[in-house]
Amino acid sequence: MRMRQRLVIGVALFAWWCPVAPALAQAPSPHNLMPVPASVTFAAGGFAIDAHLGVKFDGYKDARLERAVERLLQRITKLTGVPIVRSGNVPALRITCGRGPSGVQKAVEDERYALRITTGGATLSAPTVYGVLRGLETFVQLIEQEPNGFAVRAVTITDQPRFPWRGLLIDVCRHWMPVEVIKRNLDAMAAVKLNVLHWHLSEDQGFRVESKLFPLLHQKGSDGLYYTQEQVRDVVRYAADRGIRVVPEFDMPAHTLSWLVGYPSLSAGKGPFELARAWGVFDPVLSPIDEKVYAFINRFLGEMTSLFPDAYFHIGGDEVNGNQWNGTPAIVAYKKRHGMATNEDLHVYFNTRVSAMLKARGKIMVGWEEVLHKNLPKNTVVQSWRGQKSLADAATQGFKGILSNGYYLDYIWPATRHYGVDPMGKDAANLPDEAKARILGGEACMWAEWVTPDTIDSRIWPRMAAIAERYWSPATVTDPGDMYRRLDVVSQRLDATGIVHRSNYQPMLERLAANRPTDALRGIVDLVEPVKDYNRGRRVEYTSLSPLNRLVDAARPESDEAREFERLVDALLADPAKSAGRDKVTARLEQWREDAKAVQSVLDSPLLQDAAPLVQNLTAVSALGLRALDALQKKTPLTLTPEETESLAKAIAPVAEVLLMVAPSVKKLVDAAK
Amino acid sequence: MRMRQRLVIGVALFAWWCPVAPALAQAPSPHNLMPVPASVTFAAGGFAIDAHLGVKFDGYKDARLERAVERLLQRITKLTGVPIVRSGNVPALRITCGRGPSGVQKAVEDERYALRITTGGATLSAPTVYGVLRGLETFVQLIEQEPNGFAVRAVTITDQPRFPWRGLLIDVCRHWMPVEVIKRNLDAMAAVKLNVLHWHLSEDQGFRVESKLFPLLHQKGSDGLYYTQEQVRDVVRYAADRGIRVVPEFDMPAHTLSWLVGYPSLSAGKGPFELARAWGVFDPVLSPIDEKVYAFINRFLGEMTSLFPDAYFHIGGDEVNGNQWNGTPAIVAYKKRHGMATNEDLHVYFNTRVSAMLKARGKIMVGWEEVLHKNLPKNTVVQSWRGQKSLADAATQGFKGILSNGYYLDYIWPATRHYGVDPMGKDAANLPDEAKARILGGEACMWAEWVTPDTIDSRIWPRMAAIAERYWSPATVTDPGDMYRRLDVVSQRLDATGIVHRSNYQPMLERLAANRPTDALRGIVDLVEPVKDYNRGRRVEYTSLSPLNRLVDAARPESDEAREFERLVDALLADPAKSAGRDKVTARLEQWREDAKAVQSVLDSPLLQDAAPLVQNLTAVSALGLRALDALQKKTPLTLTPEETESLAKAIAPVAEVLLMVAPSVKKLVDAAK
Repeated sequence: MRMRQRLVIGVALFAWWCPVAPALAQAPSPHNLMPVPASVTFAAGGFAIDAHLGVKFDGYKDARLERAVERLLQRITKLTGVPIVRSGNVPALRITCGRGPSGVQKAVEDERYALRITTGGATLSAPTVYGVLRGLETFVQLIEQEPNGFAVRAVTITDQPRFPWRGLLIDVCRHWMPVEVIKRNLDAMAAVKLNVLHWHLSEDQGFRVESKLFPLLHQKGSDGLYYTQEQVRDVVRYAADRGIRVVPEFDMPAHTLSWLVGYPSLSAGKGPFELARAWGVFDPVLSPIDEKVYAFINRFLGEMTSLFPDAYFHIGGDEVNGNQWNGTPAIVAYKKRHGMATNEDLHVYFNTRVSAMLKARGKIMVGWEEVLHKNLPKNTVVQSWRGQKSLADAATQGFKGILSNGYYLDYIWPATRHYGVDPMGKDAANLPDEAKARILGGEACMWAEWVTPDTIDSRIWPRMAAIAERYWSPATVTDPGDMYRRLDVVSQRLDATGIVHRSNYQPMLERLAANRPTDALRGIVDLVEPVKDYNRGRRVEYTSLSPLNRLVDAARPESDEAREFERLVDALLADPAKSAGRDKVTARLEQWREDAKAVQSVLDSPLLQDAAPLVQNLTAVSALGLRALDALQKKTPLTLTPEETESLAKAIAPVAEVLLMVAPSVKKLVDAAK
Repeated sequence: MRMRQRLVIGVALFAWWCPVAPALAQAPSPHNLMPVPASVTFAAGGFAIDAHLGVKFDGYKDARLERAVERLLQRITKLTGVPIVRSGNVPALRITCGRGPSGVQKAVEDERYALRITTGGATLSAPTVYGVLRGLETFVQLIEQEPNGFAVRAVTITDQPRFPWRGLLIDVCRHWMPVEVIKRNLDAMAAVKLNVLHWHLSEDQGFRVESKLFPLLHQKGSDGLYYTQEQVRDVVRYAADRGIRVVPEFDMPAHTLSWLVGYPSLSAGKGPFELARAWGVFDPVLSPIDEKVYAFINRFLGEMTSLFPDAYFHIGGDEVNGNQWNGTPAIVAYKKRHGMATNEDLHVYFNTRVSAMLKARGKIMVGWEEVLHKNLPKNTVVQSWRGQKSLADAATQGFKGILSNGYYLDYIWPATRHYGVDPMGKDAANLPDEAKARILGGEACMWAEWVTPDTIDSRIWPRMAAIAERYWSPATVTDPGDMYRRLDVVSQRLDATGIVHRSNYQPMLERLAANRPTDALRGIVDLVEPVKDYNRGRRVEYTSLSPLNRLVDAARPESDEAREFERLVDALLADPAKSAGRDKVTARLEQWREDAKAVQSVLDSPLLQDAAPLVQNLTAVSALGLRALDALQKKTPLTLTPEETESLAKAIAPVAEVLLMVAPSVKKLVDAAK
């Protein structure tokens, strides 16, 4: 019964049918894989995903791999609506794993895999469990709709990562993130083959791990919002199950206000201290000359290193402003006595001692680029965040390095901008090979000043997937258009991992509209993006206690609508005679005019208090755009009043902490019509 | 600093502002509580929900209550976007709990609570932890938007449930439901004060719990889709944390095909047996005359009763068709020998023996109404499903009873129909008080023939909340209009519990449209409902292996749009001179006409193969509706061709397993215009 069904579908697949986007209707249709594998060769045919989908392990297998297959099948059910009972007599997916893991996942593991799909089924082979985990994610990405249901297309893939260290930093300090947030993001990370969670666990605003040795750390430093040790172990296990390492960061000697609330004597300055509610670089810092501080750190590291099995341990080391050290006579005297010319020397001294404590516990130190110094052990990993130069410097000096500069998700850049940043680019490009080999990869950073558990997913995803491709795929994979095409598909499919980057949008709009109709509001919010870089909070005063429930929080980091509109405008201006293009632009401008009218009925909502000027701007922009189109068609130059010129400029400027992303394209139209 | 902020907001609240729905703009605005408390008295003022929100226990406290407060605060953050650090010096919420629990949660516990909110804060008092848990849910439901942010309104509530047994049955056999599905539904259940999860764990289609004594039960009876014992314990703990009892059901002696695959000798008939993939009433049944069967059941119950701490244990007992017993000479002879006239007698004999085994383990037996018989111990609980008469009969005979007839969620009835069913209604209405006292409450049933993990939430919610109100609130709370008004609010807020009844809609539409634009499709699916009762599957052959990813699966059980349209049409026909009403009806009909055109661009999607006739019907209905409006306005009688009359009838009939719910209202228009 089953074989017959398969064969029929196999035949149908010879004419592969790919409805993902209208552009794909031609053959051969491009794939939707992200990150793009090292080598992909499609063939004719494929096989159907049906309820029987059996999976068999031919080589090494263990409970982790079994669980991975369980998750895979559950995800396929979510994606397809096909219940899977694994009852097929002939397994559709055969997995050959070469060997089991040797101990804890290392920074460099063999993650290669080969995936071969024919009309008879799929074969996934990999030397290690890590390769199997990566290959399973590729398998699920291959599933597409075809006329008779869901199927995977015949293909031969051989794949391996470009960089071994592919990470995401999540800051759980500026805003608290419960375990479920971390877990769902681990699932999404695994889906795009990321393998490091950099867990930023202590900050001026919060100390987020239970310490049994020094309980005042979490008791006084967290507002009660911390992970118990059992929760930490649970998250580490959860990550390990997905082939993801967890690198903890306890930032020191600066960014330690939360430590000092409970243990003020660790400070170079005078207490009492209070948790920071604002953010920035604060003066309070650990004393680098007090042996009691080192004794504390040593015992603290003993406790925390036992909680985190990974070989790497991040001690932060960034943004020591030196004010408190300069203001403390004993420290000034200490520097003089030991011939230290600068606070940097003192900082190196501190880092060297902490590094030795970590080494004694078998751990390798990671620090932000400020720790870079020739005296540190050469296996120290330097994380570059202020520029790419420090990465090249570190590699030249013999240190390993990872790049975060250019990957700050909280800058709210478009995916394409992050995508263009390469760990081997800029200063690293001309390094000798042995220095290049020290560049382990990259980490995107999700700093949490402007995110809550409800909004963080939309700030990480889908842009993180584009960055993950940069870390995994060959350096030659750089086409932004194809990236966006696949990102759109991947973003939809990431729903099935449990992240809420798409599903949290509508509830936020409903809240904004005070539970009244959201169609017009959505139409408008679809056109905006939050202000970029660190421009948020420049006009409104925020602290970590401020509600994050405004229009700027609902707005997506990238307006797909605005990108599409820009494309339409560019095409129209390139060939103004084409009426189809003009009609599309006109339809959009008219729609916005309608939305700006219709949204008035909810603009009295408490949370939309700051949105009225934005709506005015959209009204102005729509009208000017329509007039420009008219002028272009009639070939009569458009003249604007000074007020109109000003209204266009105003529409391009930030309002309500968002940017009306279609305004610059309308300006293009207007300029062309002048 | 903080006090000032509070006072300002307190003053603002004197003019309570309630934007939930335009209808609410008048004072005093109705509340959004569901279930409606026994007594609610609002006062002037209220207090603001801000980041400091402190919580303090004045009386008994334990880890369960602490966790409940943690969840409450996380949910408030989700609902409001306000991060909560509990740092207020004056606690905003004081909780006084009288006493701790005595052992496992019983079928009848004191769930009373009193909640008093003033401008100074909130006080929640309850004699037991169960009352506190219920009261916390009311507190979160009181949060509303007001001009300066979120706040709770001053109120005095005293509350208690009408029935002690308020349940939801979830069938995890016809389709497998992973642990996460159960957990998120437990959270939603707690939000509307339900307190019993009836976990339907074995069926012809699957045996869903690991058995260490009889491993072939889950190994051969589940396709590998079962809960480990550790997962069962985890779910039971999770439920207990929320004040929800878990009553397991292992259905016997019928509905046991999945047992017989591994243990064929338990059967009255001959093996081998295979898991059922279709559904209905099958012949295979346990042998009621074989001592080895009773020995098996006895040991099996020993294992399972130790896994489920609840005092009640459900043994099914429904739908014994008797064919296999009649066809087995030994059984026929046994009946004769023991003077049993009917198979019912044999079934009672079986039940009595099982009941004794449960009693020996301190458990009370629950069974479907077929078990009702004078010989059973009087503490047996009878669950009525075929009608309300059996509930009254059971109570008259001295048995306790719970009502499920009228609460079958898989019938896809509108909420108002379930809402109108009362456990004390119909045959129970005239019972003497002591018999009425035996009616413990009700259970809604989510049978899983037509649901997957992705669709089940939308079949349970929000309708379950209306049923929960029937079980909790005073019998006098019956207004369907007010129920729907509150249900709409509650449904949105249930998002925050993690259930996906709303968020799964858009992804399903995207899948239907093969990831192309969904606006028009959504407009159309918003107007339909799945066919009712058990009409699904009458035209299409389904098994438990069929994909559930069609239009009927995406369709919501109730079309809010259709209900609103019916209201508009009724209003228009009642007062045809009112142009505002006519404009609204016209706008809708024109929108549908547009949607029916626009949706053509995705109708070639594989999963929309059956949708074309529906779209044709919508086109016909829109056109007829517009013509009827025109005729009504011009007061010229509308005449239809026979083809047009037929097209209207066709539009009312099911197509693609859905009903076009606006068609009957259009027929009203047409009939009025004739």
